[in-house]
Amino acid sequence: MEDASVWAKRDADVVWHGFTQMSSFTESSPIMVESATGHELIDVDGKHYLDAISSLWVNTLGHRVPELDQAIREQLDRGAHSTMLGNSNRIVTECAEALAAVVPVDDPHFLFASDGASAVEQALKIAFQYWTNQGISGHTKFLAFGGAYHGDTIGALSVGDGGFGTNIFDPLRFPVLRAPQLSDPACFDTAIAMIEEHHDSLAAVIIEPLVQGAAGMQMAGAEEFARLGVAARAHDVLLICDEVATGFGRTGTLFASQQCALTPDLLVLGKGLTAGYIAQSVTVASGRVFDAFLGPDLSEKTLYHGHSYSGNALACAVAKRHLELIESKNVLANVKARSEQLRGALENKIAPLPQVAEFRLCGLMGGVELASPDPSERWGRRVCAAAVARGVLLRPLGDVVVIMPPLTITDTEIERIVTTLAAAIDDANL
Amino acid sequence: MEDASVWAKRDADVVWHGFTQMSSFTESSPIMVESATGHELIDVDGKHYLDAISSLWVNTLGHRVPELDQAIREQLDRGAHSTMLGNSNRIVTECAEALAAVVPVDDPHFLFASDGASAVEQALKIAFQYWTNQGISGHTKFLAFGGAYHGDTIGALSVGDGGFGTNIFDPLRFPVLRAPQLSDPACFDTAIAMIEEHHDSLAAVIIEPLVQGAAGMQMAGAEEFARLGVAARAHDVLLICDEVATGFGRTGTLFASQQCALTPDLLVLGKGLTAGYIAQSVTVASGRVFDAFLGPDLSEKTLYHGHSYSGNALACAVAKRHLELIESKNVLANVKARSEQLRGALENKIAPLPQVAEFRLCGLMGGVELASPDPSERWGRRVCAAAVARGVLLRPLGDVVVIMPPLTITDTEIERIVTTLAAAIDDANL
Repeated sequence: MEDASVWAKRDADVVWHGFTQMSSFTESSPIMVESATGHELIDVDGKHYLDAISSLWVNTLGHRVPELDQAIREQLDRGAHSTMLGNSNRIVTECAEALAAVVPVDDPHFLFASDGASAVEQALKIAFQYWTNQGISGHTKFLAFGGAYHGDTIGALSVGDGGFGTNIFDPLRFPVLRAPQLSDPACFDTAIAMIEEHHDSLAAVIIEPLVQGAAGMQMAGAEEFARLGVAARAHDVLLICDEVATGFGRTGTLFASQQCALTPDLLVLGKGLTAGYIAQSVTVASGRVFDAFLGPDLSEKTLYHGHSYSGNALACAVAKRHLELIESKNVLANVKARSEQLRGALENKIAPLPQVAEFRLCGLMGGVELASPDPSERWGRRVCAAAVARGVLLRPLGDVVVIMPPLTITDTEIERIVTTLAAAIDDANL
Repeated sequence: MEDASVWAKRDADVVWHGFTQMSSFTESSPIMVESATGHELIDVDGKHYLDAISSLWVNTLGHRVPELDQAIREQLDRGAHSTMLGNSNRIVTECAEALAAVVPVDDPHFLFASDGASAVEQALKIAFQYWTNQGISGHTKFLAFGGAYHGDTIGALSVGDGGFGTNIFDPLRFPVLRAPQLSDPACFDTAIAMIEEHHDSLAAVIIEPLVQGAAGMQMAGAEEFARLGVAARAHDVLLICDEVATGFGRTGTLFASQQCALTPDLLVLGKGLTAGYIAQSVTVASGRVFDAFLGPDLSEKTLYHGHSYSGNALACAVAKRHLELIESKNVLANVKARSEQLRGALENKIAPLPQVAEFRLCGLMGGVELASPDPSERWGRRVCAAAVARGVLLRPLGDVVVIMPPLTITDTEIERIVTTLAAAIDDANL
């Protein structure tokens, strides 16, 4: 018996994995990671796997990046954490200043949290209280798109569209105005009409700019999102851009909002914020929104929301160094070049296959939709299992095979991902 | 101008602090932390502050603990993070195994998250789906106590009792059955009667065993919580123990549930889990609960909930080493000895003061309630500001001065905290 099987069994006895049916966990040949290097994960048996999903969309520059490791080591010598409640920490200030220079938000203010969902919740609560603080009543609703995913906590789940069978939680969710799916060509017209009709009762519109990741890489044009932003502004409805998945270069610009000419009132960041190293998220509020919370000390205008590890020093140290590396390593140029290469390779080698319906790609956020006759056939799972067996870590969303490599992926590695995917589709006997 | 003032101004321009009125942030002489050592924080001007609130209730063994720093350094050499979705990482398995040996949960399974609130949300959703998965309908409600606090995300806020003026978010919260405040002598009788009456519609009861922290250190006897646990079990209502604040030795035992003879179906841990180093939380489910989610692959019985940094390798490395240190450093014995010392000192030096109503203490979780004539007098804030000026970091909950030192606090430091508090009460001219 290999070590991996032993460890998988030990793991299944005590660890509950999210979005994972634990009864079949060990049979699915899970990768039991022991270490990592660059773009590869190494399991307990010494096998290497190309991390083509960036350890679930969080890793940006690969694993064990010397400069990022060093940032954490240096901060350890100063201190790992101190509280943000009423006090601060120099590295947190510096991290926020560095972010302030690059986010597409006017006069930005940074409220840190740890999980992306928590930062979404912060954005929802800030948008809601923004109106209350100004004595404007009735702005209690949110507008979101079909297929939206914003996280799994109840507030985040409420604005999400109940994918993954989560509609069983409907009794716990608050109601939301729902625009159509992005696949509907009229979805933006409808959403704008809904803003016009309901602007008096809306606190905010929440969107995933350019790409709905968890919906299976559903995409729409930048100009459509731009139109929506204009409508929200014209009708004085706050705009929340959830860039937990798209932020930090993933779509080819530092933030997807920039391609859409959006300057959101609230911007939500996570995942790539710390380069995939440590849990940290942040809600970025514009000066206009922030100012609505100023008032007498201890007054009701205060935002009474905070997470224990908000502004964690280790996380801020790595986030700050990460921003510097994105610049010095010219990461955005690599995303554009590798995205073009990937598009060409998918067009040539994947799209023509009879088992493939289509592919969608934006920057290095891609999805290959299989032409599965029925979800119960589990084509996505079967193809990804075959890819893993060939040393490339892929994980599907239903029948969409997600391709989400680190932003520093090389041309050779892009070639390997596509070649392996083609072989895996063949292996899977679909 | 001192560096601290300059940094406070820079900070206030970009950082939004939770539970903090930002208009008065800079005037409140915030501590701008530069580094830390042992039980002290050091600001940008080199001033030292005894961290008597454990960097907001998270720090257990002090700052810059060599063994914990080393655990992170070693894990950095293996890799900071890999995904838990369908895969695992050896350090996560090892951390869960170490936790499994000590938590008061039968056949425990660990679902990691990052924010404590997220782990509460996981517990609520698991409790809710537990019934659905067994085809038992109608168990959609939760019972919680008056004064309860479980975090700030919408689900956590729903089971919480809307303190801090958060009832403005009522339109977003789901309704909850509310037992009386712990200060009501009949609260457990009432809660048990509510379980008897509503057990057919309850998914779970959620409690903070022994101490409601955010409510201002409200306490009740272990035997009362034990009675509640028996009633929940007798009526087949799940019991969720939120030990985010009380866990990892804070109340004198590793978990407060143990003093109450409770074996919860779901246990929520955070804060001290990583010794105050890195954001990580975990929902611990009993085998009975876990088994209700087993079924065919991709079936609706699966828990479709997961956070990106669930099972972060750096956090698990420090959490595992932390458990070893609690044992090897005999931390629980110190908590008991220092708690007795603190109780004596509070009785002698603080309780007799005319400005003090009473104090409450459990382990090293304490609160001194000031006899404030009116909250607008801000006695709690004024006393804590005076303590900070004297080099001891305290932060109040309303008019309750919280005393929550690291678990490795020394007798000299306990003496210093109490002496400083007495002087600060005098300084504040109440």
